[in-house]
Amino acid sequence: MPKIAVLPGDGIGQEIIPQAVRVIKAVLGTKEAEFEFKEYLVGGVAIESVGKALPDETLRACQEADAVLLGAVGGPKWDHLPSPERPETAALLGLRKGLNFYANIRPVRMLPSLISTSTLKEEVLDGVDMVVIRELTGGVYFGEKGRSDNPRAAYDTMSYSEEEIRRILIKGFETAQIRGKKLCSVDKANVLETSRLWREIAIELAKDYPEVELTHLLVDNAAMQLVRNPKQFDVIVTENMFGDILTDLASMLGGSIGMLSSASLNGTKGMYEPAHGSAPDIAGKNLANPLATILSAALMLRYTFAMDEEAARIEAAVEKVLEQGYRTGDLARPGDKVLGTVEMTDAVLAVL
Amino acid sequence: MPKIAVLPGDGIGQEIIPQAVRVIKAVLGTKEAEFEFKEYLVGGVAIESVGKALPDETLRACQEADAVLLGAVGGPKWDHLPSPERPETAALLGLRKGLNFYANIRPVRMLPSLISTSTLKEEVLDGVDMVVIRELTGGVYFGEKGRSDNPRAAYDTMSYSEEEIRRILIKGFETAQIRGKKLCSVDKANVLETSRLWREIAIELAKDYPEVELTHLLVDNAAMQLVRNPKQFDVIVTENMFGDILTDLASMLGGSIGMLSSASLNGTKGMYEPAHGSAPDIAGKNLANPLATILSAALMLRYTFAMDEEAARIEAAVEKVLEQGYRTGDLARPGDKVLGTVEMTDAVLAVL
Ligand SMILES: CC(C)[C@H](C(=O)O)[C@@H](O)C(=O)O
Ligand SMILES: CC(C)[C@H](C(=O)O)[C@@H](O)C(=O)O
Repeated sequence: MPKIAVLPGDGIGQEIIPQAVRVIKAVLGTKEAEFEFKEYLVGGVAIESVGKALPDETLRACQEADAVLLGAVGGPKWDHLPSPERPETAALLGLRKGLNFYANIRPVRMLPSLISTSTLKEEVLDGVDMVVIRELTGGVYFGEKGRSDNPRAAYDTMSYSEEEIRRILIKGFETAQIRGKKLCSVDKANVLETSRLWREIAIELAKDYPEVELTHLLVDNAAMQLVRNPKQFDVIVTENMFGDILTDLASMLGGSIGMLSSASLNGTKGMYEPAHGSAPDIAGKNLANPLATILSAALMLRYTFAMDEEAARIEAAVEKVLEQGYRTGDLARPGDKVLGTVEMTDAVLAVL
Repeated sequence: MPKIAVLPGDGIGQEIIPQAVRVIKAVLGTKEAEFEFKEYLVGGVAIESVGKALPDETLRACQEADAVLLGAVGGPKWDHLPSPERPETAALLGLRKGLNFYANIRPVRMLPSLISTSTLKEEVLDGVDMVVIRELTGGVYFGEKGRSDNPRAAYDTMSYSEEEIRRILIKGFETAQIRGKKLCSVDKANVLETSRLWREIAIELAKDYPEVELTHLLVDNAAMQLVRNPKQFDVIVTENMFGDILTDLASMLGGSIGMLSSASLNGTKGMYEPAHGSAPDIAGKNLANPLATILSAALMLRYTFAMDEEAARIEAAVEKVLEQGYRTGDLARPGDKVLGTVEMTDAVLAVL
């Protein structure tokens, strides 16, 4: 029986996850009975109840599951903790590393109905449709780090092995191959040794994908190009830290961070979560935008369960309600029909 | 006698530097005789003639000068060289480190007359006026790096000492104090040990600047906020790599990278250069925009020679010609009066 580990987490995570589950169950229909949905503790709520942001039971359950559906973690309540123990770091980095989710996929598409909510001009955004692939278990996130005193000093190590680079680049080439056949590899090869190795391997692999056009962009230029001319991109692939920065930036090209879904994969096993955080300021008020989580659920059906048709149905339903003019607060402009978290999901279900 | 080392470098550097020198000399008037202007080789042209991107003579001359005026370096002709020997890396990093230019200052201001050339909406940009301060001699740029084979692997070390962090943050606080009194320190303290030390020191220093409001932003969020709501920023201060990415991104908020000037300082000694590159595609055609270099020359008069009035005159002249509708190709929209490099400078001189 396919297993889905459901981890609502903190803040609005508690509100958006049940809504995404409603949508998954609706689209599964009678097939729902074939799936196991089980909830586990993670994040600040896990610290409160069992003293750890990523309880062993949760980690084990996720390892045994086929897919993890995650809401969001963290909040000001736990900001007094040393950073490595905070929910965002302990839980997210722990799950990524513990399940070897090395490939983070964030699709960025500008829906015509959301163009006006963006800070960029319509002609720049019209037609934006790209996927950003971020390496998620290596680089400066997981390299050796340390501190010394008197005088104080600190260091972090960015390191990559051939194998780590190769598998994420392959994901990039494969994704480009079934899309627009353009892969842009982002690095800082004029300065970093890890980037030089990255570029070397990208050039080697390109021979295996003759139909894919490989280009290289330095990360500073890539950040600029995403704002200057985002339509030039089809698939972007980059290392962990650069991907962290570029995906948040790219979310502005999809209208709002409240629309950005993400899949973190290791083969067909995956963790699916919205790119936004736990938004403690609006938590518990039925104000959160559930769409990024609902779109992440669609990615789960596609990538883990190979249910392309069901995934596409969810995506089409989300597009439809936005065309109908429904908005959550984060997307609203004066005069828009503003819905709550539950009501937005009702609207999606109505057109599914 | 105050000494200015003039380093045109490669590509359009050869065209824009003489134009900036014309403007400096014009604004100095009779005082010109008190300054020594002397040209030195740097970049690809230096490789061609003496075999090294940063000849010893040039480095020494820059060390003895009060200010360095640099055009741009690099080009496809030298891309076959190993990265550390290429003009961009060898010359730029060599000058920064060799002269201890630890504070890179990039003012980002949206001139009303350029708003329409941007990809961002007018209401988002109207009033943008910030300074981005980037640490320039530390971090992952200069930390230990290396490679191993069989299987291949590579690493880079991001490291910072208390002293390195302290002096750049002080520059940030001091800059905020004479501007809008808001300092935003950008780091990745939820992941990096260097960022945790950075934030710790920022909080300690804040006590010495009670009038300055200090905020912290994670780098991924900062990249997003620069596009979502750039007007919130007054002064941004960040480490080397993050600053590299954020300043290129921020250039989009000033209309074009062709408008972004920069000063790299160590006390009052400084290196002044446009943020853009050598643009080999348009080199030698009188097409380059000289304004970023001319504005960098204004920064030189202000920061190294304390000639505030002369600096302001240059800045006002640049603003004026843009208001008059004059444009170089990179800034032009259909119907604009397009000028060449020399003619644009003539226009600036005419209103100086
Ligand atoms: C919370 C943080 C550790 C995380 C990251 O940096 O990866 C977040 O920014 C993300 O992008 O998922
Ligand atoms: C050319 C390169 C080494 C340099 C850097 O990364 O610092 C450039 O991008 C810059 O911003 O001046």
